[in-house]
Amino acid sequence: MSLTLSRMLLDRFFPDAGEARPPTDWKETPEAHVFRMDVPGLAKEQVAVELVDGRVLRVRAGNKQDAAAKDGHEEEDAVRWHCRERVGSRALETQFRLPEDAAADEVRAAMADGVLTVTVPKRKGGKKRQHGGNKPVCCRFWP
Amino acid sequence: MSLTLSRMLLDRFFPDAGEARPPTDWKETPEAHVFRMDVPGLAKEQVAVELVDGRVLRVRAGNKQDAAAKDGHEEEDAVRWHCRERVGSRALETQFRLPEDAAADEVRAAMADGVLTVTVPKRKGGKKRQHGGNKPVCCRFWP
Repeated sequence: MSLTLSRMLLDRFFPDAGEARPPTDWKETPEAHVFRMDVPGLAKEQVAVELVDGRVLRVRAGNKQDAAAKDGHEEEDAVRWHCRERVGSRALETQFRLPEDAAADEVRAAMADGVLTVTVPKRKGGKKRQHGGNKPVCCRFWP
Repeated sequence: MSLTLSRMLLDRFFPDAGEARPPTDWKETPEAHVFRMDVPGLAKEQVAVELVDGRVLRVRAGNKQDAAAKDGHEEEDAVRWHCRERVGSRALETQFRLPEDAAADEVRAAMADGVLTVTVPKRKGGKKRQHGGNKPVCCRFWP
């Protein structure tokens, strides 16, 4: 069974198991690699967009239970759940190995209406990327 | 097979089939029924929150392909997709039959970070709802 399928089934049938992987689109245009991820309920400050080892794009978000707990009516004894499908109570994490033509030092991130967009421009003239060494480089690429 | 399970499997394995149903939490507190739905990528103006026949809460959103087409790089010949998991290109629709204690005429809706929250207060003193007749009542409950 492929990794993607097994993760998909794990996410669907054991929704509380570990981190969730946000639904992602990754498209390549002549100028850039553009990643879009659905992260509903999260504000910009709650999402970390990181570059690990100069070649792996990693997106992480903390456990959203904290945020949900603040919005009232959380005396759980008095609450009755009729339907609970959102993955809002789980941490999110996903990562992608960037291709050789990615200008990893020019990553930009933006967030709107619960969608994270990460743009990684391509290097001009077919230059290959410089690896950043083994140390994780952790940063937020917000403008 | 239950309707919920069959819809879940349909959504997962045939993601382009018809309307998608947004992941929803429905909780009941002593004062109200609170629905939260993940609708990432949608603005308030793109979502219709409706009351049908005075008893069915219906949430609909148009096909998001139109919005996606506006954000550049949509010369599809020059685009290569590496990963396409978001349901952004489908229309959304879901509906819930409200319980007898719901004050359907006091529905409120709000949107933040791609999450729609619909609050339906409960009637005081166990009064039952007044049905609105057979005609659909279509409205947006934004404040």
